[in-house]
Amino acid sequence: MHIRVINPNTTASMTARIGKAAEAIAAPGTRISAVNPQDGPVSIESHFDEAISAVGVAEEVRRGERESVDAYIVACFGDPGLMAARELTRAPVIGIAEAAFHMATLVSTRFSVVTTLGRTAIIAEHLLASYGFAGHCRRVRAAEIPVLELEDNNEAAFERIVAECRRARDEDGIGSIVLGCGGMADLTGRISDAVGLPVIEGVTASVKLAEALVGLGLHTSKHGDLAFPRPKPFSGRFADWSDARH
Amino acid sequence: MHIRVINPNTTASMTARIGKAAEAIAAPGTRISAVNPQDGPVSIESHFDEAISAVGVAEEVRRGERESVDAYIVACFGDPGLMAARELTRAPVIGIAEAAFHMATLVSTRFSVVTTLGRTAIIAEHLLASYGFAGHCRRVRAAEIPVLELEDNNEAAFERIVAECRRARDEDGIGSIVLGCGGMADLTGRISDAVGLPVIEGVTASVKLAEALVGLGLHTSKHGDLAFPRPKPFSGRFADWSDARH
Amino acid sequence: MHIRVINPNTTASMTARIGKAAEAIAAPGTRISAVNPQDGPVSIESHFDEAISAVGVAEEVRRGERESVDAYIVACFGDPGLMAARELTRAPVIGIAEAAFHMATLVSTRFSVVTTLGRTAIIAEHLLASYGFAGHCRRVRAAEIPVLELEDNNEAAFERIVAECRRARDEDGIGSIVLGCGGMADLTGRISDAVGLPVIEGVTASVKLAEALVGLGLHTSKHGDLAFPRPKPFSGRFADWSDARH
Amino acid sequence: MHIRVINPNTTASMTARIGKAAEAIAAPGTRISAVNPQDGPVSIESHFDEAISAVGVAEEVRRGERESVDAYIVACFGDPGLMAARELTRAPVIGIAEAAFHMATLVSTRFSVVTTLGRTAIIAEHLLASYGFAGHCRRVRAAEIPVLELEDNNEAAFERIVAECRRARDEDGIGSIVLGCGGMADLTGRISDAVGLPVIEGVTASVKLAEALVGLGLHTSKHGDLAFPRPKPFSGRFADWSDARH
Amino acid sequence: MHIRVINPNTTASMTARIGKAAEAIAAPGTRISAVNPQDGPVSIESHFDEAISAVGVAEEVRRGERESVDAYIVACFGDPGLMAARELTRAPVIGIAEAAFHMATLVSTRFSVVTTLGRTAIIAEHLLASYGFAGHCRRVRAAEIPVLELEDNNEAAFERIVAECRRARDEDGIGSIVLGCGGMADLTGRISDAVGLPVIEGVTASVKLAEALVGLGLHTSKHGDLAFPRPKPFSGRFADWSDARH
Amino acid sequence: MHIRVINPNTTASMTARIGKAAEAIAAPGTRISAVNPQDGPVSIESHFDEAISAVGVAEEVRRGERESVDAYIVACFGDPGLMAARELTRAPVIGIAEAAFHMATLVSTRFSVVTTLGRTAIIAEHLLASYGFAGHCRRVRAAEIPVLELEDNNEAAFERIVAECRRARDEDGIGSIVLGCGGMADLTGRISDAVGLPVIEGVTASVKLAEALVGLGLHTSKHGDLAFPRPKPFSGRFADWSDARH
Repeated sequence: MHIRVINPNTTASMTARIGKAAEAIAAPGTRISAVNPQDGPVSIESHFDEAISAVGVAEEVRRGERESVDAYIVACFGDPGLMAARELTRAPVIGIAEAAFHMATLVSTRFSVVTTLGRTAIIAEHLLASYGFAGHCRRVRAAEIPVLELEDNNEAAFERIVAECRRARDEDGIGSIVLGCGGMADLTGRISDAVGLPVIEGVTASVKLAEALVGLGLHTSKHGDLAFPRPKPFSGRFADWSDARH
Repeated sequence: MHIRVINPNTTASMTARIGKAAEAIAAPGTRISAVNPQDGPVSIESHFDEAISAVGVAEEVRRGERESVDAYIVACFGDPGLMAARELTRAPVIGIAEAAFHMATLVSTRFSVVTTLGRTAIIAEHLLASYGFAGHCRRVRAAEIPVLELEDNNEAAFERIVAECRRARDEDGIGSIVLGCGGMADLTGRISDAVGLPVIEGVTASVKLAEALVGLGLHTSKHGDLAFPRPKPFSGRFADWSDARH
Repeated sequence: MHIRVINPNTTASMTARIGKAAEAIAAPGTRISAVNPQDGPVSIESHFDEAISAVGVAEEVRRGERESVDAYIVACFGDPGLMAARELTRAPVIGIAEAAFHMATLVSTRFSVVTTLGRTAIIAEHLLASYGFAGHCRRVRAAEIPVLELEDNNEAAFERIVAECRRARDEDGIGSIVLGCGGMADLTGRISDAVGLPVIEGVTASVKLAEALVGLGLHTSKHGDLAFPRPKPFSGRFADWSDARH
Repeated sequence: MHIRVINPNTTASMTARIGKAAEAIAAPGTRISAVNPQDGPVSIESHFDEAISAVGVAEEVRRGERESVDAYIVACFGDPGLMAARELTRAPVIGIAEAAFHMATLVSTRFSVVTTLGRTAIIAEHLLASYGFAGHCRRVRAAEIPVLELEDNNEAAFERIVAECRRARDEDGIGSIVLGCGGMADLTGRISDAVGLPVIEGVTASVKLAEALVGLGLHTSKHGDLAFPRPKPFSGRFADWSDARH
Repeated sequence: MHIRVINPNTTASMTARIGKAAEAIAAPGTRISAVNPQDGPVSIESHFDEAISAVGVAEEVRRGERESVDAYIVACFGDPGLMAARELTRAPVIGIAEAAFHMATLVSTRFSVVTTLGRTAIIAEHLLASYGFAGHCRRVRAAEIPVLELEDNNEAAFERIVAECRRARDEDGIGSIVLGCGGMADLTGRISDAVGLPVIEGVTASVKLAEALVGLGLHTSKHGDLAFPRPKPFSGRFADWSDARH
Repeated sequence: MHIRVINPNTTASMTARIGKAAEAIAAPGTRISAVNPQDGPVSIESHFDEAISAVGVAEEVRRGERESVDAYIVACFGDPGLMAARELTRAPVIGIAEAAFHMATLVSTRFSVVTTLGRTAIIAEHLLASYGFAGHCRRVRAAEIPVLELEDNNEAAFERIVAECRRARDEDGIGSIVLGCGGMADLTGRISDAVGLPVIEGVTASVKLAEALVGLGLHTSKHGDLAFPRPKPFSGRFADWSDARH
């Protein structure tokens, strides 16, 4: 089974860390290939960053379709371009926010999210509402850490995240915590140890969900509103989408 | 990894069929043990049947705790006793309705449920609301087949289910169908072939979800409201619960 | 009119106190008979305790059906086995949580719940959502008192409850308080006096609701999903349910 | 116990019929006094009719306060002026729509409403949402009968209502029916007989709920947002409200 | 274009101030006429005050219908009589709470409301739920200022409002603030300057929305439930409504 | 006042038609400039088309920021890139779906949407839920017309839309209809005449809403989650976003 992990930002070091976290959790027969778009922002911390990166996600899915990928993971906590990506392939596509929320509801009745910047909390709130999990999430918290500060083995950032997780544990009436950034993927174990309750991180969660869907033989439905987009002319720098769907 | 599939009713032939479906989907390293309570109803088609069978589920979890089970599956579409079961173990516990709903939202934007008897639709509706998926489900449909009619390779029952699935596909504006009974586990492939869109069945879905959770090292949270029940005296035929939690 | 008050736990002293509170509020022509199952836990403080006690509730309804009971009350704040009980009889069946919530919305626009242990708050939250009252309840609060501490005229427990009620009154923006435990039934008047706003307790509320429903000639609907369960074989210690519905 | 039934419209014959229905269901010790405002519309079939009749309801509560009334009933299915009325008295005030919805959820999992004119369905929908029962009601149906056609023992109107109730029973997946007009109060028994499932009517339901609340010693909360209105000058034809609260 | 601004209370000085605020914002071709009912309360601070003032709103719409008004504004934050007013005219009718909520969602993802008295918060909450904006509003706050204290250039009141707005800005995670009283209309600019984020006030917002609707040629739908009320006899002081709809 | 109407697809003839419809409704002092991105799809009929076109919307806002635009309109019914666009400017940004929904709730209690292709209905459903209008919309209907078929004075397409609108009017219990495509902007009057109830179209609605917001001096909040994106490196074909925010 070949799972393509798409880091929607262009920071190769983060892609590598995310890929490593994915590999560490993958089942024996699973091949992980972690990629990121050539074009886009170095980190995703706003709706605008998300809009640009969604194009990169789509491009990576198109590339993947030529390489017999079995499932895709969109490895940014805002799940940018998730629905578009699903239209472009028969393979399952999973967002890491989505994956983490699903898993959290399976091991606890209520969870909180600890994310990077407060300004991205609204993105998590919108996703929670759209996915149906608004009632399961007590609170979306931010450690106020820019995404790229997670890149350099930053102990101060780690401590800030742990501190916010502890506040969530002590104040929110929860059973588990969802980490709100793909860049936290390799910290999960240490955070969980420090906090003492289940800590769910989306990259690893989505690898296992992808394996599950592929194992079940389930594909993204092509009946109805996730069918392949109708072919049509695209112009300018997107002209290569005009006839290149498959 | 050892997954205990608990069929909450007492029909051993159904337990065997469910177990076989679970084994067929399980990963190489996964051991499936399918069990059913000694005490309870032969099928579950009402709130009352559910209430009785929830005791059986609890008992099977207690038994499992002495046998180093890694995850439990509650293999009846009403997920009877799910929350109680979660309190009794650190291992993940997954209901098949829950599992099927989660998977359906990952491969389609909207789904319908096709269940056995119309009177059980309310159980599915309550679960959909509680899990957060009420907005993703267009309709809960019933083929009006008593559960045990699924037991004997019943072609008429199969045809009724397929017919209802086709109506769902054509009228409901959906991308996938959730089968609403554990007894349909071994029919999934044939139904999916006949209907032509993703058909999700909970026994198989929950095996893969259980593997995913165990693979992630996630356990049922013991922080907060799913903690082990406080020990206390039980009387009468439940007296053996007084001090036998583990 | 004969109202059967079922205390779902096995603590006879609590049954007696609940029965006395019910009698004190009953109309002249109303006969109260308070019972508790022989089998089950001494108190109900978890989903597991609830699952076991639901069987006791069902058994007491079956017994009641042979004694011309006109209405049943399930006198534990989690309303365990309520839907199952409704299937087993044509008589109205009322849960005390449900009754208290209904009454609270009739005398105030918003209420808070003050219950025993924090771990049971999730049960109240689930009921509020299912009954439709989630928007009317500001907060579910816990005095962190184990249920049986209410048994011995415990002044410390009483003070803890009153203190929590006062916090609810002063912080929550509410008009009334719902007491979240059947064991508080005989404290209602004193708590209300101490707090100075309407305090609603479910045992008394459900006695009056039961009288109301019986007075109206309303019975539990047998059209649709609360119809009597289909008769079927039960095995083991539940074998006596095989043919003993009526 | 003295229950004041306020018919918010000015049709005395309907007031008499409503009063009779209320008396027929009242407990031995309950005195019913049915009144209607002197000023207002002969029937209530729009938001505008409701707005005018809300003044009449307020005036009748003010009158009642001088006559030691123990509870008030607002006997129009839109519950006009309900919140205002609650502010004006310490006594419980119950709307008949509200009462019927509450009772319906106690005897069935889902109900439909059968009301008079289609244009008033939106009023019922708004109330269902506000009271929390939107999820319990499958459908608001109209028999398209003007309210006053119910006044003269109209068999054609009765048949239209029964026909619509039967459609609700057969198509909506419900367990009970709520009648959506105070003018149907004396038809309830016949309709229920004709339809064969619990039929709930608000006038009778609210009499029993009023008895229940008074029996419990519960009054409308004067803590918070239902407190008596702040005294203030009123001008013109409402000048008599300036200092006449009590 | 002629916009009739109806101040539902009878305080002429407030009507003048509201009218002035409306004129200041109106487009060149827009004529503002600000009126208030002759009959009713000097301020609106409860459901009861609202019920009385709704009659005044209806009367003013009736008067306006003889004067070729193009749109109506109901200039009290509880939007009293809004639906009734809509039934009485083909012209658009806009409530100032409604208008402010709509505008707030267009310039921010989340807002808070700062209103006068805490007891009116429930009115705002009910409107938010009914209009669909409950999820966009973080919190309804009160400065605990009686409405008429806003009348005399009251600096203390102004400071209290600003202080509450600052708390909203700093604690609620919002992007804008909605002022919860028509009497604050002429303070908006100063408050916005003092607080430093978009402050939305309903009188001005509704003038622009009214201009927008009239500009679009949109009228209140007379198809369905906002059609003109059916003509019918009214008695007593409301007798003039019997045949005077237009 | 300068309003920039951004047609997110690249079909210049549609841009012209949309611009003309916008000009026809604009107030005297309003300048309309209609543009479309150079790069992107000729029409938008899927999540993927939306994702690509969102980049074009962002680019057009960036261009507009150098040209003193006072407000932006995103003239595609899926409101692609709306939140991103809001982050990029202090000016108000309005989506045409959003605008149409707001206006529809001001002139009716319930509306239906008539859109082009059934596969885009999910986009409208997601927007309705996110904006808070899910409860106000009875049904999203599709005439099954590809967007570009609206381009050539297509009478057959017009008739299909009218036919679907009539079904909505007759079956859905609504007061108004929202047209679900920017390409229908110049058909609104004819459709409304043919159907006989208020028909709301988003391009015109958003012009008037934009005028309203600008008239009120309201800007997109830069406090909180719609603040300008943090500057950061972009690579590849998006490199020009690295430092070119303004």
